Amino acid sequence: MTSEHSVGAVTARRLHFEQPLATVAGAVLPSYDLVYETYGSLNADRSNAVLVCHALNASHHVAGWYVGDENNIGWWDNMIGPGKPLDTNRYFVIGVNNPGSCFGSTGPASIDPHTGTPWGSRFPVMTVADWVEAQARLADALGIASFAAVMGGSLGAMQALQWAIRYPQRVRSAVLVAGTARLTAQNIAFNEVARRAIVTDPDFHGGDYYAHGVKPKRGLRLARMIGHITYLSDDAMMEKFGRASRAEGFKYHFDVDFEVESYLRHQSDKFAEYFDANTYLLITRALDYFDPARACNGDLSAALAGAQARFLVASFTSDWRFSPARSREMVKALTDNRLDVSYAEIDAPHGHDAFLLTDRRYHAVVRAFFDTLAREQGIVGGAGQPIELPGRVEPAVAPAGLPQSGFAA
Amino acid sequence: MTSEHSVGAVTARRLHFEQPLATVAGAVLPSYDLVYETYGSLNADRSNAVLVCHALNASHHVAGWYVGDENNIGWWDNMIGPGKPLDTNRYFVIGVNNPGSCFGSTGPASIDPHTGTPWGSRFPVMTVADWVEAQARLADALGIASFAAVMGGSLGAMQALQWAIRYPQRVRSAVLVAGTARLTAQNIAFNEVARRAIVTDPDFHGGDYYAHGVKPKRGLRLARMIGHITYLSDDAMMEKFGRASRAEGFKYHFDVDFEVESYLRHQSDKFAEYFDANTYLLITRALDYFDPARACNGDLSAALAGAQARFLVASFTSDWRFSPARSREMVKALTDNRLDVSYAEIDAPHGHDAFLLTDRRYHAVVRAFFDTLAREQGIVGGAGQPIELPGRVEPAVAPAGLPQSGFAA
Repeated sequence: MTSEHSVGAVTARRLHFEQPLATVAGAVLPSYDLVYETYGSLNADRSNAVLVCHALNASHHVAGWYVGDENNIGWWDNMIGPGKPLDTNRYFVIGVNNPGSCFGSTGPASIDPHTGTPWGSRFPVMTVADWVEAQARLADALGIASFAAVMGGSLGAMQALQWAIRYPQRVRSAVLVAGTARLTAQNIAFNEVARRAIVTDPDFHGGDYYAHGVKPKRGLRLARMIGHITYLSDDAMMEKFGRASRAEGFKYHFDVDFEVESYLRHQSDKFAEYFDANTYLLITRALDYFDPARACNGDLSAALAGAQARFLVASFTSDWRFSPARSREMVKALTDNRLDVSYAEIDAPHGHDAFLLTDRRYHAVVRAFFDTLAREQGIVGGAGQPIELPGRVEPAVAPAGLPQSGFAA
Repeated sequence: MTSEHSVGAVTARRLHFEQPLATVAGAVLPSYDLVYETYGSLNADRSNAVLVCHALNASHHVAGWYVGDENNIGWWDNMIGPGKPLDTNRYFVIGVNNPGSCFGSTGPASIDPHTGTPWGSRFPVMTVADWVEAQARLADALGIASFAAVMGGSLGAMQALQWAIRYPQRVRSAVLVAGTARLTAQNIAFNEVARRAIVTDPDFHGGDYYAHGVKPKRGLRLARMIGHITYLSDDAMMEKFGRASRAEGFKYHFDVDFEVESYLRHQSDKFAEYFDANTYLLITRALDYFDPARACNGDLSAALAGAQARFLVASFTSDWRFSPARSREMVKALTDNRLDVSYAEIDAPHGHDAFLLTDRRYHAVVRAFFDTLAREQGIVGGAGQPIELPGRVEPAVAPAGLPQSGFAA
């Protein structure tokens, strides 16, 4: 058993891409930046790279911390590091911020060089497939022909699945945690409420609020509250808050009277400060649209016919937005194609957020998967940095104060 | 088997109460109107009266239809009528609109006689216990000393439970459908998001929007969307909408691309037209605050120690906002007190809304309960109207176009 440590102080890099990105929706992002981080070192045969894809409210800052901002810890730091389930003594791990984000890579709040003003409403609608294209170009720039694994939770799992479909020869394994091959109508509906909250906020200004010096914070707060509630389980919320009231007895008003109200307001206030509303629209829409089976008349097995990776699929019993039933659909479609699939349904009380939390059984499953992968593929750790990382050092892009839960999907 | 018919054309009545209603919150409603309807006729010994309590988006219009508005059918018309599970050939059924509502009884949109302007933000916060007091006064006015049953679904079940606690000698049975003795933190949280949507709408004006000639419709729409989603099950939504898109292929925008989005917008637009925002705040708050066990250190069995009624408790397997587990808590507390309790957990796919829908097994359980009650208590139907119904005829108070689902809690 290796002792577990943080990857320590990390540095983000910003890499510019001049090649236009043509999107599934038929638009073109003429040029763009991607911000990324790496942990561990690439080995001599470049066989130990793992790409980690982020979900709704996360970024390239997956592990470690920043000098001068030591409390800004990567969102999957409990999973990734020396001796951790995804062991950076052996694997070279890459975290990348997707285009459309508000955490560094080019997004709606970025300046469109052709106009000198923020992209705003003119930023192209992004899909999971578009993100995978952008990530593939980063892999090219890093000289990585094939990933030992592409890994993600929630929306990140969608990206890993898309990688396995789109680039079967570049993905030797895919780790899909708390994922789905398509959202249910209920999930789309929750996303729609969040979007309506933002779009109908008078401060939204059709998406071009930057020019007005305002943000649709009312809408962002509501969107965040809905997300927060639905990423937790009923039981987990009851365990955490119960029906506790803030003071002795009720005040009988429409303001805060229960702990859960106070918590939601605090979390949503913080979120509305640092998150961009257009990014929220864009990312929830990417969730809605993802549906690889759609091109095959709804037949997911057919959609996965070209995949070659081995798979680890993991779900959590109390996750009702990305329920185990959704993971089992993927497992069935993968096994229909006689692919090598491990499936773990983790008995965990925390809802969708469980994928971000430390759970002994969950982490043991991921650790065993990566250990087996290394053994069977002869993957050894790199000794120092064999490549110069491209792009310029990014001074301070990652968001401070990412909440510890409820930021999953 | 009696053939099932509608109670037919019905008339609402408005009854004025001069006696002030002192609320649990410490406020006073100096005088008020209650609007109510009755179906069937009171028998000679006045033993066949059943009170039906309404939930969030409903009213006193429980069964039948109005002359000139034949499509405006009562919200529990499938349950109540001649030959129906609650048989109006045998029982005298009363539907009453609670104070604070926007469907006829005095509420925030009513004129405060002391100021000549709408109550608005000054309307007292109402609790379930306050509603039961108001209902008891209506029972007094009708000369009903004891109800054969007090019955309700969701928030209506809370009122029936409160009746059994507060007036044990006036409630011979209580029918609690899709209810709970207290909301969970998750439920309070959903209510809080709905309230925040309303309160942060710039058209809310602190609750006194009437004077501004506007309504916080943006907030009401969002509140309604959240309610609608959570009163349905994931499976029921998937069955109804799937991932169907409106046209061929996606438009890739933030407007409507999925059927479920179109449906939610349509439903919420309608709702925002006819519902009052202050009533939404008030009713969700009554849901949050209801917690009879609170006075007994959380011991529900102790809170129910004085109850004497026989109980029918029913829940639905796919109801995740008022789940079977909540009903089982009530059943346990009732049986702890050696009360006569029947419990039915109905395997139904429609979520919380199931309590409003026609389900053979569910209706059979209710029918059997009322049949047994009549047999054991020697309840016979009334022959014509033995009492003059107090109050003046109310011309047209009930809302037109109540949606067929999603209006439960």
